[in-house]
Amino acid sequence: MVSLKVGDRTTEIRFGPGCWRELLSDFGWTAENLTVISDERVAELWKGSVLSEALWLTFPPGEGYKTLSSAAQLWSSLVSEGCYRGRPIIALGGGVVTDLAGFVAATYLRGVPLLNIPTTLLGMVDAAVGGKVGLDLPEGKNLVGAFYPARGVAIDPTFLSTLGPALWGQGMAEVLKHGLIKGGSLWARLNSWRPDIRKGLDPLGEELLEEAVKVKIQVVSEDPFEQSGKRALLNLGHTFAHALEWSSNYALPHGDAVALGLLGSMRLSRRLGRLTEDVEEDLCSLLDFWGLPSRLPEQLKFDCRWQRIQLALSRDKKTIAGRLTFILPKAPGAVEAHEVTGLDFIREAFESLGSVRGEVSA
Amino acid sequence: MVSLKVGDRTTEIRFGPGCWRELLSDFGWTAENLTVISDERVAELWKGSVLSEALWLTFPPGEGYKTLSSAAQLWSSLVSEGCYRGRPIIALGGGVVTDLAGFVAATYLRGVPLLNIPTTLLGMVDAAVGGKVGLDLPEGKNLVGAFYPARGVAIDPTFLSTLGPALWGQGMAEVLKHGLIKGGSLWARLNSWRPDIRKGLDPLGEELLEEAVKVKIQVVSEDPFEQSGKRALLNLGHTFAHALEWSSNYALPHGDAVALGLLGSMRLSRRLGRLTEDVEEDLCSLLDFWGLPSRLPEQLKFDCRWQRIQLALSRDKKTIAGRLTFILPKAPGAVEAHEVTGLDFIREAFESLGSVRGEVSA
Repeated sequence: MVSLKVGDRTTEIRFGPGCWRELLSDFGWTAENLTVISDERVAELWKGSVLSEALWLTFPPGEGYKTLSSAAQLWSSLVSEGCYRGRPIIALGGGVVTDLAGFVAATYLRGVPLLNIPTTLLGMVDAAVGGKVGLDLPEGKNLVGAFYPARGVAIDPTFLSTLGPALWGQGMAEVLKHGLIKGGSLWARLNSWRPDIRKGLDPLGEELLEEAVKVKIQVVSEDPFEQSGKRALLNLGHTFAHALEWSSNYALPHGDAVALGLLGSMRLSRRLGRLTEDVEEDLCSLLDFWGLPSRLPEQLKFDCRWQRIQLALSRDKKTIAGRLTFILPKAPGAVEAHEVTGLDFIREAFESLGSVRGEVSA
Repeated sequence: MVSLKVGDRTTEIRFGPGCWRELLSDFGWTAENLTVISDERVAELWKGSVLSEALWLTFPPGEGYKTLSSAAQLWSSLVSEGCYRGRPIIALGGGVVTDLAGFVAATYLRGVPLLNIPTTLLGMVDAAVGGKVGLDLPEGKNLVGAFYPARGVAIDPTFLSTLGPALWGQGMAEVLKHGLIKGGSLWARLNSWRPDIRKGLDPLGEELLEEAVKVKIQVVSEDPFEQSGKRALLNLGHTFAHALEWSSNYALPHGDAVALGLLGSMRLSRRLGRLTEDVEEDLCSLLDFWGLPSRLPEQLKFDCRWQRIQLALSRDKKTIAGRLTFILPKAPGAVEAHEVTGLDFIREAFESLGSVRGEVSA
């Protein structure tokens, strides 16, 4: 178990099969006094075997439902079901579920206890840990939200047994991001790990997952509220990724967008002369193995044209008074925030994602 | 200046004419980099002379607009106006404005700096201090919200110059509540203070206002997140009040509801044999002087019938697993939380509010 301190709250994080039961027991919570918030797909898969005696509230699956209107329905259901202030909410699902259910838990009656049980690799390695909760506005992703650390997070690989190959890739994009941030042996072992994922997570995979989560825990513990700039490093690849997702009207999945964003930020870093160890080939080989794109899909090129990307970038949460800040890799294990003045290099790096590999060079 | 620590945040509270300028200068904020959120009525009165160079976002006045839909419009305006994460929001107005603007500030981009400038007595003595922000759902008041302490609060009596007599009463209901909680010389002086309020706040009035605010500051500082039960004492009169407001479909103003709630809780306390010093006569005389009701208005008796009150009480945030907790006065300066089992005494106390004074006796 790892404890993560965020402000005056502490999150207990446990790893391993069935670890959510241990957390419930740590907290003295019993299923019949819990409210599970999940999406309809996850509920169909797991309601029969996990927390069946709890009250379940669900919404339709997909980023398209991480909205104010889903939150409004959940708040109303909590009221009409008579959920009182001390009754915990369990967020069971992928990143959309833990983000939205977390925001509902943060704001219902000014905050009720929260436990995250991520069911996707993406949720485990990113969304469920670190206290960021929120929802999307029509104008952009995660524009409404809060810092509301869960009481606990259960990283239980059992849930990955129902994950399709596409969703493995989605999560691996964030795992690779954490590998680039941490570098060292994590990055090296990610490069040599080529599992047959249809057989589930192998022992090395479980180890790498736990290490990738701990990269996030480490960074968050040093800057829980994104004040020192340290936590912003987790945004590696995400400035481009968010702009791509918005421009594509969310047709581009988050992991695909992060994959392209990682590549774009590496090319931007090279163009700015900040790259000291060029691992684009390794990255592209990893993206290929995990079924992640290293080029913008042809059918999204119109939606994701520069004019729209530029508008989205201007709305990035890291943008202050029109100045754009990117997180740039110098080398695996060396990542830094950099204010990029002038749009030409950014445009060049972005446009390289529509063309063949490595078109941008120093 | 008083500093109030809420978790890891501190609120600077200043008193006196023009004190908001001092707070802006403390924080190094300039008007043209601020966003003022206000209602249309307050904007009409003050936009010409206060923070004219700021960006102003307004919504229609009244509790009926403390809704998710107002928040949604404000969030969207903030995005479309390009408001970035470090740009402060100034909540300028009564309790509805500081609650709603505070919630928007708490959740926009996961939180931006907030300064409250309450313009009503009610706002000064209650809503603007203590970090509670939120909005109403169709099912009840303040069901969605957060603890989000403002960076600063400016208690500037200048704004009271435009306050009509009815709104004086609304604020005095909370001042009287703080007087009952504190007791001693505050309660004594409130009983002998009979100002001509058309001439504005007299020096004794300014003093009493500051002392009443400090009662709240003191209680909040001892229990900022309503965990020890201490902060719940500020709910004196509010369990009945919220039920009355909801049942009346918000036709009953908050201060009127609190006035009736104070009286109701005193009668409930007497009925339960917990009253050691009966000040009902003093309270009724004060309510009369300040134009506050000591009887439920005839035209609301149908809406506020017991069946509806009972439903509303079951949704009170202090209700846990169906057990009702009331804050009861024993004497001025001695107020306590008490779990009331059985509905008969509550019903009796409530129904006494529809009849002549003092009908309920021990």
